[in-house]
Amino acid sequence: MYKELSVSKKNLLGAGPSSVDPKVLKAMSTPLVGHLDPEFLVIMNETMDLLRHVFQTQNKLTMPMSGTGSSGMETVFVNFIEPGDDVIVGINGLFGMRMADIANRCGAKVHPIEAEWGRIIDPDQVKEKLDATDAKLVAIVHAETSTGVCQPLKEISNYCKEKEALLIADCVTSLGGMPVNIDETGIDIAYSGTQKCLSCPPGLAPITVNDRALEKLRKRKTPVLSWYFDLSMLQNYWGKERFYHHTAPISMIYALREALKIVYEEGLESRFKRHQLHSKALVRGLESMGIEMFAQEGHRLPMLNAFKIPAGTDDVKLRKYLLEELGIEISGGLGALKGKIGRIGLMGYSCDKSNVMAILSGLELAFMAQNYCIEGNIGIKAAETVYRQSCC
Amino acid sequence: MYKELSVSKKNLLGAGPSSVDPKVLKAMSTPLVGHLDPEFLVIMNETMDLLRHVFQTQNKLTMPMSGTGSSGMETVFVNFIEPGDDVIVGINGLFGMRMADIANRCGAKVHPIEAEWGRIIDPDQVKEKLDATDAKLVAIVHAETSTGVCQPLKEISNYCKEKEALLIADCVTSLGGMPVNIDETGIDIAYSGTQKCLSCPPGLAPITVNDRALEKLRKRKTPVLSWYFDLSMLQNYWGKERFYHHTAPISMIYALREALKIVYEEGLESRFKRHQLHSKALVRGLESMGIEMFAQEGHRLPMLNAFKIPAGTDDVKLRKYLLEELGIEISGGLGALKGKIGRIGLMGYSCDKSNVMAILSGLELAFMAQNYCIEGNIGIKAAETVYRQSCC
Repeated sequence: MYKELSVSKKNLLGAGPSSVDPKVLKAMSTPLVGHLDPEFLVIMNETMDLLRHVFQTQNKLTMPMSGTGSSGMETVFVNFIEPGDDVIVGINGLFGMRMADIANRCGAKVHPIEAEWGRIIDPDQVKEKLDATDAKLVAIVHAETSTGVCQPLKEISNYCKEKEALLIADCVTSLGGMPVNIDETGIDIAYSGTQKCLSCPPGLAPITVNDRALEKLRKRKTPVLSWYFDLSMLQNYWGKERFYHHTAPISMIYALREALKIVYEEGLESRFKRHQLHSKALVRGLESMGIEMFAQEGHRLPMLNAFKIPAGTDDVKLRKYLLEELGIEISGGLGALKGKIGRIGLMGYSCDKSNVMAILSGLELAFMAQNYCIEGNIGIKAAETVYRQSCC
Repeated sequence: MYKELSVSKKNLLGAGPSSVDPKVLKAMSTPLVGHLDPEFLVIMNETMDLLRHVFQTQNKLTMPMSGTGSSGMETVFVNFIEPGDDVIVGINGLFGMRMADIANRCGAKVHPIEAEWGRIIDPDQVKEKLDATDAKLVAIVHAETSTGVCQPLKEISNYCKEKEALLIADCVTSLGGMPVNIDETGIDIAYSGTQKCLSCPPGLAPITVNDRALEKLRKRKTPVLSWYFDLSMLQNYWGKERFYHHTAPISMIYALREALKIVYEEGLESRFKRHQLHSKALVRGLESMGIEMFAQEGHRLPMLNAFKIPAGTDDVKLRKYLLEELGIEISGGLGALKGKIGRIGLMGYSCDKSNVMAILSGLELAFMAQNYCIEGNIGIKAAETVYRQSCC
């Protein structure tokens, strides 16, 4: 009645999950050891070390939460908000909205700073809001997956320091594909997911928390609303005490360790350059085809390239063609952007020249199928000029 | 600097995770498809069907939460408790305590019914408490992993119906190894984990909720404290709408589907009999060695066999010997039972004759290493009598 598990070959070039390195898939099929086994404790230590490397931090409390990326968001809000706290939240896309939703559930007085979807949050507005409120917590999305916008954080971080406020950054899409520079930028708390530029399956949410933030956690007057995401308890499992909290997702941690090892071996600088190069080639190709990019110029993410759906073409048909004819997945727009943009991910293992060429030629075919004519091979030819320039 | 991932062969005969069927490990290494891919939606549907089968329910809302077993506990409490609600919680082990902790965080007025660890909760006490309070929610652990006790639920369920209270059952350790009979027993809400008798890696928490409980959810006056575990939103992703909530842990769901398919193919009745048989053989072997079982007679779990550490022997040394010399993991006691009991799991894929014999002979060696003398092979000989009887 139930068939053997089998799925078609898919090239995951959407907003995530990205395609997973076969080495990571192999690691995940390693037989289990117990969650308190001495061998597993070594694997946990290595995973934390490797996470510090990719987060570019020395923070002791750096570990994966046992849930998908959004559980990282929930973790930081439930631990660092007490009912009645004033919290500043930047909202310029779906994930900013989600932050505000979760902060509200935690009983915060949310002070939103809004920007048009596709544009960055103005750092000066954060300063003004910090001056005008008692907020001691500012939450901003570093890489807004719903729009492709990359938020500059250094100025905001400086303003937070002046007001002794903590800065939370959502690095779900940025981690492993571009610098997040936790320590250098002065980000106090950050979270991410495994299924974007780390090219690991979804299922874990790496977080990092500095001592300044831990001090605030120690001074809480009310219990953390969540038992499952209670960092004070989790610290005791991942820390020296190794005190049982919940059974760790062993196989996912095998996978994360392997994915992080691959990042480490490539080197952060090479990895970040690789993401820049292929995004540049992709954008050159798209623009040469008359397709406009969506996110504000100068603030575009390399790993998540949002483009406007050309007038006269249909987004759903476009994605259906790519998926059914070519096995390529890209993502559509979310919320208010539904039907208006497409989102192409070039993340981690998926970020290479063959995929840039596959999606450019695939889009050409998909547009032609809608009688939206594009001169032959113009996209891939334009992209090729970027590669030629880069090697000289 | 970081070595290839490699772990020693371990025979997981503790409280979980149990050893995973190689077919499940293989399924987990299947390349990814997107979390909204039509092929994945079929896999989700099949997983829900197969979960209904093992939960023995027709409940439409039957799905895995994206976290480990404890996240299932948190899910049901955050969704079905509103601040100020009276909640009756049975506490006769660590997981009952955890339920009370989480219920408190949700703002409940907790009315505990306690029993000595190792004994069941008296159903009449539940009736009395229902009469004496305004509680509309009763939470009880079906299979108390910390003590090996199996709680009878039918009477309690009847009392709940009389008072129009909802019954929550923790089936983390029982699901897949013994009947949970959700519909027949009248359990309104149940949750479980994947790493016990389903023999899937830890990382998901299957839950099931009936219409009576859903009605209560619809009538909530306050928002659910957790966004990540908000069932009303999750229903829309797992239901017909397929509305994006969070990125599902694809690989873990591949694994769960395969693990559930194995359960389905074996058949529930055969599977439950298998757990009964091997537990009986194990207990016969242990008792013949002069080792006393811990949990109340007549209410012992077949998949989790708790025994008293004999006077004059040391629990830590015992487990260390088994792990280091034989690669066998068993679990020690938790909380007040630390050092006082050992816990042997015979769960799912791990539940077979070879493991019964391996742990009985291993224990004999481990006890001998502590100069606690046991006549040669007495345990395995006694166990063998059970197997001989069962085949005639």
